[in-house]
Amino acid sequence: MTDAIDYARYDRIRPIRWTGEALELLDQRRLPFAVEYLACRSSDEVAEAIRALAVRGAPAIGISAAWGVVLAAREVEAADAAEAARLLEPAMQRLNAARPTAVNLAWALARMRAALVRAQAGEGMDWRAALEAEARAIESEDLAANRAMGTLGASLIAPGSGVLTHCNTGSLATAGFGTALGVIRAGVAEGRIDRVFAGETRPWQQGARLTAWELLQDGIPATLIADSAAAHLMKTGAVQWVVVGADRICANGDTANKIGTYQLAIAARHHGARFMVVAPSSTVDMDTASGDLIEIEERDPAELFGIGGTRVVAEGVAAWNPVFDVTPAALIDAIVTEKGVVERPDAEAMRAMFGP
Amino acid sequence: MTDAIDYARYDRIRPIRWTGEALELLDQRRLPFAVEYLACRSSDEVAEAIRALAVRGAPAIGISAAWGVVLAAREVEAADAAEAARLLEPAMQRLNAARPTAVNLAWALARMRAALVRAQAGEGMDWRAALEAEARAIESEDLAANRAMGTLGASLIAPGSGVLTHCNTGSLATAGFGTALGVIRAGVAEGRIDRVFAGETRPWQQGARLTAWELLQDGIPATLIADSAAAHLMKTGAVQWVVVGADRICANGDTANKIGTYQLAIAARHHGARFMVVAPSSTVDMDTASGDLIEIEERDPAELFGIGGTRVVAEGVAAWNPVFDVTPAALIDAIVTEKGVVERPDAEAMRAMFGP
Repeated sequence: MTDAIDYARYDRIRPIRWTGEALELLDQRRLPFAVEYLACRSSDEVAEAIRALAVRGAPAIGISAAWGVVLAAREVEAADAAEAARLLEPAMQRLNAARPTAVNLAWALARMRAALVRAQAGEGMDWRAALEAEARAIESEDLAANRAMGTLGASLIAPGSGVLTHCNTGSLATAGFGTALGVIRAGVAEGRIDRVFAGETRPWQQGARLTAWELLQDGIPATLIADSAAAHLMKTGAVQWVVVGADRICANGDTANKIGTYQLAIAARHHGARFMVVAPSSTVDMDTASGDLIEIEERDPAELFGIGGTRVVAEGVAAWNPVFDVTPAALIDAIVTEKGVVERPDAEAMRAMFGP
Repeated sequence: MTDAIDYARYDRIRPIRWTGEALELLDQRRLPFAVEYLACRSSDEVAEAIRALAVRGAPAIGISAAWGVVLAAREVEAADAAEAARLLEPAMQRLNAARPTAVNLAWALARMRAALVRAQAGEGMDWRAALEAEARAIESEDLAANRAMGTLGASLIAPGSGVLTHCNTGSLATAGFGTALGVIRAGVAEGRIDRVFAGETRPWQQGARLTAWELLQDGIPATLIADSAAAHLMKTGAVQWVVVGADRICANGDTANKIGTYQLAIAARHHGARFMVVAPSSTVDMDTASGDLIEIEERDPAELFGIGGTRVVAEGVAAWNPVFDVTPAALIDAIVTEKGVVERPDAEAMRAMFGP
């Protein structure tokens, strides 16, 4: 059914543009009201854009960091790739430190380091050109992976289904098409999905600001809900699948994703709705045995004090603002990557797909 | 342990004031930044204040409607209480229609009608004076009921516990002290509760705007969380009880309350945390057999498009905004009213406490 997907219609947004001189990032802090690209001309500007959430979404962060290394390469003089690797390491460390949870960030930087090793081994390419080629490959492979995942994930969804998603896992979070939102795009294009619901995703409102905007661009009718309305929605029978992305998938299938994901998985199980995680295999971290080993990023409590600069909370109120939670594998029906689908994930099934 | 509660410290806020000329309502749309009372001088102004959420919380709505009838009484000329009842009925209908879900509204109006019947039967009181006495009784009985519930509910909570609440069920939602928040006040005063968490309660942010503000007034340390962080919080072991209010409790114990309550009940059961509903017996509707018979109010989707006037959602996005959900009795460990506690509620246990 892949041929049925009209990508020209269902894949219009490009959040990351490499101009040859700068990395342009569609500034997600300004959406949905301003479609503006932020030009980053140094690796530290890229790190700051990642830290400040101008770019977000695990795959998009990884791609941006790779281009950040290309920018860093312009700031150093090195006799060969080995010296370049040494000189670029501080910039790569700063990029890596910009967000603590997303494994794609470390994964993309590891690929950039490996490209330098290959260049040093004499693969006949200038080390700067090798870095640029690797960044371009990371980006184009992500888009291809997303389209593959879209088709794989959609194949699990029966015609006439309703889906609920969380946060933004769309074109904006990736090179294009999206991960969980790619499955939803493919499912709509193939006529499997009739109803799309998006949780607004407090406190940063990625669902309200970004996912709702993205789906509008592609003409996919969607309905926004408060995060806390999800269980009530499921009780009406409107949702057959919850489809979400991942920031990190552990060796046993436990999955870290945007705060609120875990609650959706519990509610889905309670109502007999199914739960799908969609992420590129670069998100799989076979070195982390289980979810309780994941460091959960906590952000500024002030993010809970309002929306868009309007404060609604009295001075002196305390808040707890974890940005991610961990959904145990036992609550996940399927993990979809470009390498294939792991149904009822556990350590054994994960090893069969992603093991050495 | 009741003697331990210092009400002068733990019950400072009065949201409803009758001046003899007007009903003054602490305007909850302006909190937490402005503490302003809205003066209502007619029953229709009261109905509008209820509709517009200047006053909210099922008990506070009922009390306000009762005073609304007192105001309506000043607008009619009637020879006797029977004629007054007939002439006041349109105003009472408009008050009743101001919010569809809160059973206290209909309950308070029924009490006002009954007061007129008693006045007609010749209980020796002018019908206008009878209405004013009845409104005053509804208000003072609510405060007394809340204090009784506070002590009853707190007695279920073991020392050293953490609690999570939702929406605002405090002084602001009642004549004073609160229902669920009254239990939390009593539990803190008695040294049973160490940690208080409040969900922000999208889309209207009652938890963030009102509950956090109320607890600050009384010097009770509390931590605000995103609604979607509740399950993650429970996983840390920080929550022993979820304590919430109710807008309507059915004959089988099914409970309608603020959207998001149901999701908390599912998550609590998943984590072995317990779930308490606290509401005056006027909230119990023995004429509604179960929760699936309750009409769920849906409000303007635009409430999901931002906070405090700051829009964050693109034009053209659709939203679904149910304001309440129903928590089935099977997920509730205790229903606390001023008449006593129903543990593991079902139709039989509810009939034993509230039946004819």
